[in-house]
Amino acid sequence: MRPSGRDLNQMRAVSIETGFTKHAEGSCLIKMGDTHVLCTATIEDRVPPFIKGSGLGWVTAEYGMLPRATNTRMRREAAMGKQGGRTVEIQRLIGRALRAGVDRVALGERQISIDCDVLQADGGTRCASITGGWVALRLAVNKLMKTGEVKIDPLVDPVAAVSCGIYAGQPVLDLDYPEDSEAGVDGNFIMTGSGQLIEVQMSAEGSMFSREQMDTLMDLATKGTAELAELQKAACA
Amino acid sequence: MRPSGRDLNQMRAVSIETGFTKHAEGSCLIKMGDTHVLCTATIEDRVPPFIKGSGLGWVTAEYGMLPRATNTRMRREAAMGKQGGRTVEIQRLIGRALRAGVDRVALGERQISIDCDVLQADGGTRCASITGGWVALRLAVNKLMKTGEVKIDPLVDPVAAVSCGIYAGQPVLDLDYPEDSEAGVDGNFIMTGSGQLIEVQMSAEGSMFSREQMDTLMDLATKGTAELAELQKAACA
Amino acid sequence: MRPSGRDLNQMRAVSIETGFTKHAEGSCLIKMGDTHVLCTATIEDRVPPFIKGSGLGWVTAEYGMLPRATNTRMRREAAMGKQGGRTVEIQRLIGRALRAGVDRVALGERQISIDCDVLQADGGTRCASITGGWVALRLAVNKLMKTGEVKIDPLVDPVAAVSCGIYAGQPVLDLDYPEDSEAGVDGNFIMTGSGQLIEVQMSAEGSMFSREQMDTLMDLATKGTAELAELQKAACA
Amino acid sequence: MRPSGRDLNQMRAVSIETGFTKHAEGSCLIKMGDTHVLCTATIEDRVPPFIKGSGLGWVTAEYGMLPRATNTRMRREAAMGKQGGRTVEIQRLIGRALRAGVDRVALGERQISIDCDVLQADGGTRCASITGGWVALRLAVNKLMKTGEVKIDPLVDPVAAVSCGIYAGQPVLDLDYPEDSEAGVDGNFIMTGSGQLIEVQMSAEGSMFSREQMDTLMDLATKGTAELAELQKAACA
Amino acid sequence: MRPSGRDLNQMRAVSIETGFTKHAEGSCLIKMGDTHVLCTATIEDRVPPFIKGSGLGWVTAEYGMLPRATNTRMRREAAMGKQGGRTVEIQRLIGRALRAGVDRVALGERQISIDCDVLQADGGTRCASITGGWVALRLAVNKLMKTGEVKIDPLVDPVAAVSCGIYAGQPVLDLDYPEDSEAGVDGNFIMTGSGQLIEVQMSAEGSMFSREQMDTLMDLATKGTAELAELQKAACA
Amino acid sequence: MRPSGRDLNQMRAVSIETGFTKHAEGSCLIKMGDTHVLCTATIEDRVPPFIKGSGLGWVTAEYGMLPRATNTRMRREAAMGKQGGRTVEIQRLIGRALRAGVDRVALGERQISIDCDVLQADGGTRCASITGGWVALRLAVNKLMKTGEVKIDPLVDPVAAVSCGIYAGQPVLDLDYPEDSEAGVDGNFIMTGSGQLIEVQMSAEGSMFSREQMDTLMDLATKGTAELAELQKAACA
Repeated sequence: MRPSGRDLNQMRAVSIETGFTKHAEGSCLIKMGDTHVLCTATIEDRVPPFIKGSGLGWVTAEYGMLPRATNTRMRREAAMGKQGGRTVEIQRLIGRALRAGVDRVALGERQISIDCDVLQADGGTRCASITGGWVALRLAVNKLMKTGEVKIDPLVDPVAAVSCGIYAGQPVLDLDYPEDSEAGVDGNFIMTGSGQLIEVQMSAEGSMFSREQMDTLMDLATKGTAELAELQKAACA
Repeated sequence: MRPSGRDLNQMRAVSIETGFTKHAEGSCLIKMGDTHVLCTATIEDRVPPFIKGSGLGWVTAEYGMLPRATNTRMRREAAMGKQGGRTVEIQRLIGRALRAGVDRVALGERQISIDCDVLQADGGTRCASITGGWVALRLAVNKLMKTGEVKIDPLVDPVAAVSCGIYAGQPVLDLDYPEDSEAGVDGNFIMTGSGQLIEVQMSAEGSMFSREQMDTLMDLATKGTAELAELQKAACA
Repeated sequence: MRPSGRDLNQMRAVSIETGFTKHAEGSCLIKMGDTHVLCTATIEDRVPPFIKGSGLGWVTAEYGMLPRATNTRMRREAAMGKQGGRTVEIQRLIGRALRAGVDRVALGERQISIDCDVLQADGGTRCASITGGWVALRLAVNKLMKTGEVKIDPLVDPVAAVSCGIYAGQPVLDLDYPEDSEAGVDGNFIMTGSGQLIEVQMSAEGSMFSREQMDTLMDLATKGTAELAELQKAACA
Repeated sequence: MRPSGRDLNQMRAVSIETGFTKHAEGSCLIKMGDTHVLCTATIEDRVPPFIKGSGLGWVTAEYGMLPRATNTRMRREAAMGKQGGRTVEIQRLIGRALRAGVDRVALGERQISIDCDVLQADGGTRCASITGGWVALRLAVNKLMKTGEVKIDPLVDPVAAVSCGIYAGQPVLDLDYPEDSEAGVDGNFIMTGSGQLIEVQMSAEGSMFSREQMDTLMDLATKGTAELAELQKAACA
Repeated sequence: MRPSGRDLNQMRAVSIETGFTKHAEGSCLIKMGDTHVLCTATIEDRVPPFIKGSGLGWVTAEYGMLPRATNTRMRREAAMGKQGGRTVEIQRLIGRALRAGVDRVALGERQISIDCDVLQADGGTRCASITGGWVALRLAVNKLMKTGEVKIDPLVDPVAAVSCGIYAGQPVLDLDYPEDSEAGVDGNFIMTGSGQLIEVQMSAEGSMFSREQMDTLMDLATKGTAELAELQKAACA
Repeated sequence: MRPSGRDLNQMRAVSIETGFTKHAEGSCLIKMGDTHVLCTATIEDRVPPFIKGSGLGWVTAEYGMLPRATNTRMRREAAMGKQGGRTVEIQRLIGRALRAGVDRVALGERQISIDCDVLQADGGTRCASITGGWVALRLAVNKLMKTGEVKIDPLVDPVAAVSCGIYAGQPVLDLDYPEDSEAGVDGNFIMTGSGQLIEVQMSAEGSMFSREQMDTLMDLATKGTAELAELQKAACA
C-alpha cells in the first residue's frame, strides 16, 4: 500500500505549463504531484573554453532549491557561500542527461544553460528537473530554428527521467517524499522517448538488491519515461 | 508619457495569491505587473544570539533572484560563492522594514524568516518583496494565534512599499524596469496602512533633486502604499 | 538633554587634516568628535568593464573598520573571509554619493578609488567617510588639473553628509554613538554645499515617524551639511 | 583490441599493500595497473549530529588527487579554495558504498573516516578507492574487535567496485585511462563478494545504450568484483 | 651610500605615540621613518580551545595594511575574501614573537589580541608591528596589574625587532623600502632588551650569504634592538 | 638522550626513491626516518605575470599533508575551503629556497612547479620537502637539457635543508616529532652543498636562546646539509 494510494506502477499527476516566465528563451513549470520545478533555458553565444572553435554546441545546467521548498527550511546556498554536495551532484546529472540527447554538431557553437529551481519539493526533484529541463530546451531550440540560426533539429527524441525504488519490499514507480525517505533501494532512470538508456543510477539505501529486482525497476522506469515523453511532446506542440 | 501608458500616479496591476507553496507557515506569490516574487514565512524557535533570553521576537529576511528572472541571465549567487552587494543591501532592507511593523514583545521569543525569491523581474522587486513578505508574515502569525502560541496580535497595521522616481522630468508612481533604468531620481518608500513612515530612501541617479521634488514623491508614495495596504488586507482576509 | 551636552542643532567639533599619508594622490584624516576616518584617493587608468570606451570616468569606494575601532573588538573582515552586510551597504552608499557630485565627462575615462578606513568609531562613520572622502577626491582631482590631464573641473560643489535622528523624542543633529544606539529614528542626509539633495535615508528604529518629523530632520541636515561644506572648502584651499 | 592488449573481460594487475602508513588505524596502497590510491581509515568517537544518541555508527569518506597524479598538472583544490564537483560526487559515492556494507548497529556509535588519496591516476580511481577503502576499513574494524570495543563483526562481506564500459563498440572490463577517455558508455558497479548489488551507475558518453548492453556490462562487473573480493580477503588475512 | 644618507649602522627616526585610540586597552602609533603602524591590544576572557582550563594565557596577533598604505594601491583583503600568504606569515610571526616574551602563567587564563594595521608603509612593517605591538601589550598588562587581575608582571623585558640586510654589498641596519626592494640578503631579528634571541630569519634574495655576513648582521641587529628597547621603555613610562 | 637513541649530531636514515610517479617530469619519494614526502616537478610554459617577457624562469612550490599523515587526523584543507597559515608559510619557504638555487636566466622563461605532499609525518616535513623537491627539480631540468630546451645548467649546487634545535637543553641535529614537540628552540637551515647559506630561521619555543647556542646549531646544520647534498647527488646520478 503506497501512502498516496497509487498503484505500484502508477505515476503521480504530471502537468507542464510552458512560458511560465517571459524573459527566458524557453521555460516551463513542471509539476509531478507536489514537486514543482521552474525550468528555464538561456541561449548564449559563448561556449566553455575546452570546445571553443570546435563548432560543437554545449548544454549545461544549474539546480537550486528555494529555502522553504521543503518541510523544514534549509539554509540558502548563496548565503552559505557554496553549493552543497547534493546540489553539485544533481546539476551535473541534469547537464549530462540533457547533453546526451542533443546532436551537438547540429546545435552549432553555442551554449544553452538550463536552470532548474525547485519551488516546492515532494521527492523526485532531479527527475522533474530533467523532464522539465528538456521542455525548456526544446522551446529554446524551436526559437533558434524559427530564426534559421539552427537548420537541422538537434533534438530527435525527448529525454525524460523517473525514479523507482523498493518501498516496503515492493518495487514502485515515481517515489514521492514519504516513499523516498523510507525506500530500501532508490534509482533514477533517464531514457529517451523511444526507450534508449542515457543514465541509470541505483543505490542501496539500507538494503542491497539483486539483479532480479534491478530488472523489475528497469521495467517500471521504461513505462514511466514513455508516459513522460508523451506529455513532453504534447506540452511543446 | 510612461512607456506602459499608465497615468503618472497609477500603480501597475497587483495580485496576491496566498498559499502558493504548501510547506511554509505562510506564503504568497505577489505580482506587481511583470514583477513576480514568491514570499514564504518560516517560524523557528531559535532567535539570534544577541536577544536570547530577552523574551523578544525577531523577523529576518533573505532575498534572491532566479538566474533568468531578468532579461539577460545573471550568474547564480550560490555558484559564485557569495551574495552580491545589491542582494545583501536589499535583504537587510526587507528585514528592517518588516521588523519595524512588529510588536516584538507580543511575538515572543521566536524568529520568523521571510524568504523573497524573484521568479520574474520588471522593476521594483524590493518593494514587491516587502509588500508580499508582510502577507506571508501575517499568515504565519495567524497560525501562531490560532494555536494560542501568541495571544496578542503583534501586527497592527500592514507594511507596504512602493518605488517612486523622476522619469523624463516627471514624478511617477511605481516604476517598472524601462522607467527605473532611465530615472534621474529613484526612491523607495515603506509605510504602514495608516500612513506612518518606516523607511525612506531617495537617491540621485544622474541628476540631483530638490526638496520640492522630494515632497511630490512622498505624496505619490502615500497614495501607492495606501492602495497596497488594502490589497494586503483583502488577501489575508 | 544630549549626553554630550550639545544643543539639538549643534554638530560635534570637526577637523580635517589633509595629506595624512604620503603615497595617495589625495588623503585626509577627518575627525567628527571621536569618530576618526582616514580617507585616501587613488587615481587609476582603468575603468570598470561596463563603461570601457565610453569616455566617462568612475568613482568607487571601499570602507573598512579596524578591529578595535569600536568599544569591543570586532572580527577582522579579511580574516573572516568576507565583508559583512553593513560594510557592503556603506561602501556602496559612499561610492554612489561621491559619484553623484562628479561630472563624469569632465573627469575623463579614469577611475578614482576612495578608501575610507575607520581608525576610531563613535557614531556617524558613514557620513564622516563621505565628507572626508570628498576632500581626498578633491585633492586628487587638483593633481589631475595641475598636470593638465583634466581640463574642466569635474567637481563643482562639495558633497557632505550628516546624520540626524529622533533621540529621546527630540530631533537632533549629528548623532554620536550613545545617541545613535538609542535613537528611535535614524537618518543619513547627503547634500551639496548649495543645498541640492543627493541621497536621503531615514529609518524607523523602534518607533515610526511622521512626515512632520521628517521635515524637521531635513532642516537640521541642511544646516549641518552647509557647515561641513565650508570646512571642506577651507581644508582644500 | 584494447590499448593494453588485455582480453575484453580481463582486469588489470591488482596489488594491495596493507600498513602503508603507520599512524592510521587501517591503511593500504592499492594499485590497479597504473592507478595508485592510498587509503586510510581513522576511528573517531564522534558521529554526525543527526545520529547522535542513536547508538548507530557512521562511515564517511573523503577523496583527493595529488596535483600531478595526472598527465597534466591539475590545480590543487586546497589552493583553489574548494573541492570540485567531480571530487564531491566521488567522495559521496565512496562513503555511500562503504556504509552500505556495514552493520551500523554492530559498529556502535562511532565514526570511521576513510581518506582516499590518488597518488597516480590511470582511470578507475573511484573504483580503486572503494575497493582499497574497504580494506582500510576492515583493518580498522579488526583493531576495534581485538580490543573488544566492538563485539559483533559489522563487516560481513567485502565491498568492491569496478568500472565497465563500451569501448570501440565492445563491452570491456576495468577501463584504463586511454579506454575511459574514448568510451561511449561508462559504468561503475559496486557489489559485495557474494554478488549483491550496492550501487550501479551507467552513463551514456556520446552514444546511448540498450538494455542488452547493460546486461552484458553487469555480467563483466560481476566477474570483476568477485575477483577483487578475493584479493581483499587475502590482503586482510 | 644609503639612499637616505644614513650611516650603515644608523636606524631611522623612531617615535611611539601611546594612547592613539581611545577604546583599546593599550594602543600606540609607531613611526619608524615613513613606516607608520597603529597597534592596539584587546584583553579577552576567552582563550583558544587547546589551552582551555590550563591556567595559561595567550597572546595572538593580526596584521593588515590599508589598501593605499603603499605606493600603488593594493587590493583590500576583506574584499578579496582572504588574507594573502604574506599577511598570514607576518601575523603568525608577530604573535609568536610577542608570546615568547610573556610569562603565560603570570598572565593567567586570558587572551590579549594585538592588531597591527599599517597606515603608511616604507619597509620594515613587520618589525615596527612587533616593536609597537609590545608597547600596546605592555599598556594593556599595566591595566590588568592596576586592577589586581594580574599580580606578577608577565612581561620582564621588552621585545623589539629590526631588519638588517646586505644592500649594495654592504651590511646595513633598518632597511627602508628603497633598500629592501634591492637588498641581496634580508633578515628580521627579534630580541629582548637584554639581548636574548627570540627569532632570527635570514633569507637570500638573489645572492646567497656566508656565515661571516650573518655574524655582521647579527651585530647590527643587536645594536638596533637595544636602541628600540630603550624607546619602548620610555614610551610606557 | 634522544628518544630515538641517536647521537646529538646524527641524522635519521634518509632514502630517496626517484621516479615514484610516472606522469611528472621529475619525482621522488624522500624518507627522512618516518617522515615520507612525495615530491613532483611539473614543467609549464607559462610564467607569473610579473616576469612575463623578461626571459627569466620561475620556480614555485605547493605543500600539502594527507589528512591522516599525522597521529590524529587533521581536516582536509580542500574540504575546509582554504589552506591553513602553516601550509602557506611552508610552501612559500620551499619556493623561495629552491628559487635561490636556480640560475633563472639559464632556466629561460618557463615555470617549474614543485608539489610536496606529505604521506606520513614525523617531524621535519618542510626540510624533507625542500631536499626532495630539489631532487624532483634536478630530474625535470635534466629532461630540459636532454632535449636541448635548456643549454646551460641552471642548477649548480644542491639545495638541502635540515632542522636543528635545543632538545632537553642539548643542541641536536634533525629533530623528529617527539623532539620537535618538546624543543625549546627550533630552527630550519637551508644551505647549498658547498656550504653557502640560503635561509636561516630560528625560533624560541618556550625558552630564548643565546648567540652561542645559535652558533652551535649552525655547526650541526652545516654537517647535516652536507650529508644530504651527497645523497641528493647520488639519487640523481
